[in-house]
Amino acid sequence: MAISVPKGFRLAGVACGIKHDAAKHDLALVVSDRPAAAAGVYTQNVVYAAPVAYDRRITPSDRVRAVVANSGSANACTGERGLDDARRMARLAAETFAGSEDQVLVLSTGIIGAYLPMDKIAQGIRSAAAGLGGDDRALASAARAIMTTDTVPKLAGRTLSLSGADVRITGMAKGAGMIGPNMATMLGIVLTDAALAPDVAQQLLVRTADASFNCISVEGHMSTNDTVLLLANGAAAERPPAGDDLEAFGRALSEVCVELARAIPADGEGASHLVTIEVEGCRDGRAARRIAKTVAESALVKTAIAGADPNWGRIVSAAGYAGVDFDPAGVRLEVNGTVLYEAGRPVEFDARAVSDSMRANRDALVRLQFCEGRAACRFWTSDLTAEYVRINADYHT
Amino acid sequence: MAISVPKGFRLAGVACGIKHDAAKHDLALVVSDRPAAAAGVYTQNVVYAAPVAYDRRITPSDRVRAVVANSGSANACTGERGLDDARRMARLAAETFAGSEDQVLVLSTGIIGAYLPMDKIAQGIRSAAAGLGGDDRALASAARAIMTTDTVPKLAGRTLSLSGADVRITGMAKGAGMIGPNMATMLGIVLTDAALAPDVAQQLLVRTADASFNCISVEGHMSTNDTVLLLANGAAAERPPAGDDLEAFGRALSEVCVELARAIPADGEGASHLVTIEVEGCRDGRAARRIAKTVAESALVKTAIAGADPNWGRIVSAAGYAGVDFDPAGVRLEVNGTVLYEAGRPVEFDARAVSDSMRANRDALVRLQFCEGRAACRFWTSDLTAEYVRINADYHT
Repeated sequence: MAISVPKGFRLAGVACGIKHDAAKHDLALVVSDRPAAAAGVYTQNVVYAAPVAYDRRITPSDRVRAVVANSGSANACTGERGLDDARRMARLAAETFAGSEDQVLVLSTGIIGAYLPMDKIAQGIRSAAAGLGGDDRALASAARAIMTTDTVPKLAGRTLSLSGADVRITGMAKGAGMIGPNMATMLGIVLTDAALAPDVAQQLLVRTADASFNCISVEGHMSTNDTVLLLANGAAAERPPAGDDLEAFGRALSEVCVELARAIPADGEGASHLVTIEVEGCRDGRAARRIAKTVAESALVKTAIAGADPNWGRIVSAAGYAGVDFDPAGVRLEVNGTVLYEAGRPVEFDARAVSDSMRANRDALVRLQFCEGRAACRFWTSDLTAEYVRINADYHT
Repeated sequence: MAISVPKGFRLAGVACGIKHDAAKHDLALVVSDRPAAAAGVYTQNVVYAAPVAYDRRITPSDRVRAVVANSGSANACTGERGLDDARRMARLAAETFAGSEDQVLVLSTGIIGAYLPMDKIAQGIRSAAAGLGGDDRALASAARAIMTTDTVPKLAGRTLSLSGADVRITGMAKGAGMIGPNMATMLGIVLTDAALAPDVAQQLLVRTADASFNCISVEGHMSTNDTVLLLANGAAAERPPAGDDLEAFGRALSEVCVELARAIPADGEGASHLVTIEVEGCRDGRAARRIAKTVAESALVKTAIAGADPNWGRIVSAAGYAGVDFDPAGVRLEVNGTVLYEAGRPVEFDARAVSDSMRANRDALVRLQFCEGRAACRFWTSDLTAEYVRINADYHT
């Protein structure tokens, strides 16, 4: 599916020398030709980075014109000077379209605890502003400029028809760990040329992020910089969608966010499997997610999957310490479609066949059913390999 | 320090063929020549093993005579048949001293989801009962019989004088992961020839376990079988300690439990460092432990320590997602005695010197100070190496 830039947005990605490798893109600029509604969801970490503090004060907004993002340095744990730098980054971007500081959102990702090289940032913003474009190449180069340990840029898009007008929803994301080797962060930017009121945009984004970006994990280390932004500029349809149109828009937004979110653990550091964990039959969604997340973050579950081992005891016991009460006799577990455990007792199964299927497929499916209610959660994680340890142990500050 | 068997206790460890390697000890029996007060603390996992269900109904008690423990099979996720087997194991042990089923506590550790081989268990109990002894060799052989992936048996002991009478506190533990490769569990048995009322024994054990066995982690996977038992038979002093004596006893009990608890992450699967995490200046003990545990269980912190990398951003950001509110500007972090982060800002330090000290010492000390109050927690964990992944990924059910 072709991913196109929504109307009225232009982007650029440039290399301005923040990363050690001077050839690598490290600054992205996204500009809307008209004020856009902007929504944001942010890390829940008590230790949050300067750009998170800055953006939080701005979203939701009805007049955002730009997002400026850098990789190579997270501007986290940098005190007052870090906050000043984030503000200055916004001001420099605003000057390129003769706007004001509060019309720009700022994202940073990379090393924690280093101050931003503001000269390079300033030069990068100038050069990005001079090279803005609305085509596929511009989109790809912006997506590349927010990468850290990612091995591939992450893009997703949908076009849908709302009461006759075609609108686009296009997103980019980065992240290969919640934190890579001393690199921070999951970042996402979703652009649409549909119109949305700021509070509707915010509600939609919160709800959507909850079932996409908040349902992924690589090693479970929540970063200081996690941010997802949604900008809606109305360039393709001036009237905000309502009723069925709003529902269709919400579904498409959710598809874009799920696709971007899944791409992160699929590209997880050292990962050999993308693991989908489906939890069903819980009392409420919170309980379902808590179980899914606990299973996803168990090192023993992750190493078993890396080793293609249908070790159901590890999965069931991880569910048991999620802090959610359930009847163990009501648990049913499938891995890649084979039942391994049911009704509180082991089940006879062909361990070799399940192991072969885990070895043959990069996707693994863990399905856990409970008898407590009707709530469910789908969660994605990567497995844990010796390569992950190598990437994260052999890196030096 | 010589570790002696408390008066009135006899022990044995035998090989009865539960483990694949027929030469390895896999059944331990501990018998008190008189009824002992018995206390127990157990896993909080919703999915708990049959021996946990069985013991929970018995402790605290004032008439326990024996503990029978097996390794090689955890009797977890085994339904009603597992419960029957645990009861039968108790009955078989009780027959050896003409006692009753409810005078015996049962422990199991090993593979989840297999039924106990009751013929072998029965034979093992008979042979252990025939070989009971009160010397160092008997103690060591019992400690060896509860090992799974442990590389060393874990014993600790103290002798103290209470109002003129010498009493002994002697403990054994096992565990190399909360779960090893499909092997479950941390187990501990602490014996004393002091006298204790059952409810005092229970209170003491709960309080002591909270600051010892509940302050360790290898990968954070809570097992289905975790159990620590305390048996006090009064063979050396019939009158229970009170006042200063009770305090002295509590301190010695705590020393024994901390020594045993620390020995578990020190022997953690694939570990190259024993990491002590000291958290200070928190609002309450719960907050302090939550932060310590979150830092201890971050794969990024653990891999950084394995790689001798003083990567303070990972430690501070892990504290930030512990679910405890704090002022980031009030955080101070030391690693191996060097300040790396203070007052919300990076600090200049000699990264090479800190890295060298981490590489040269198997013990690593992470000290995190907050400005929220006066509560503290000391927590122990192992680092995360490629060897851990190998042990847990290459094992096959």
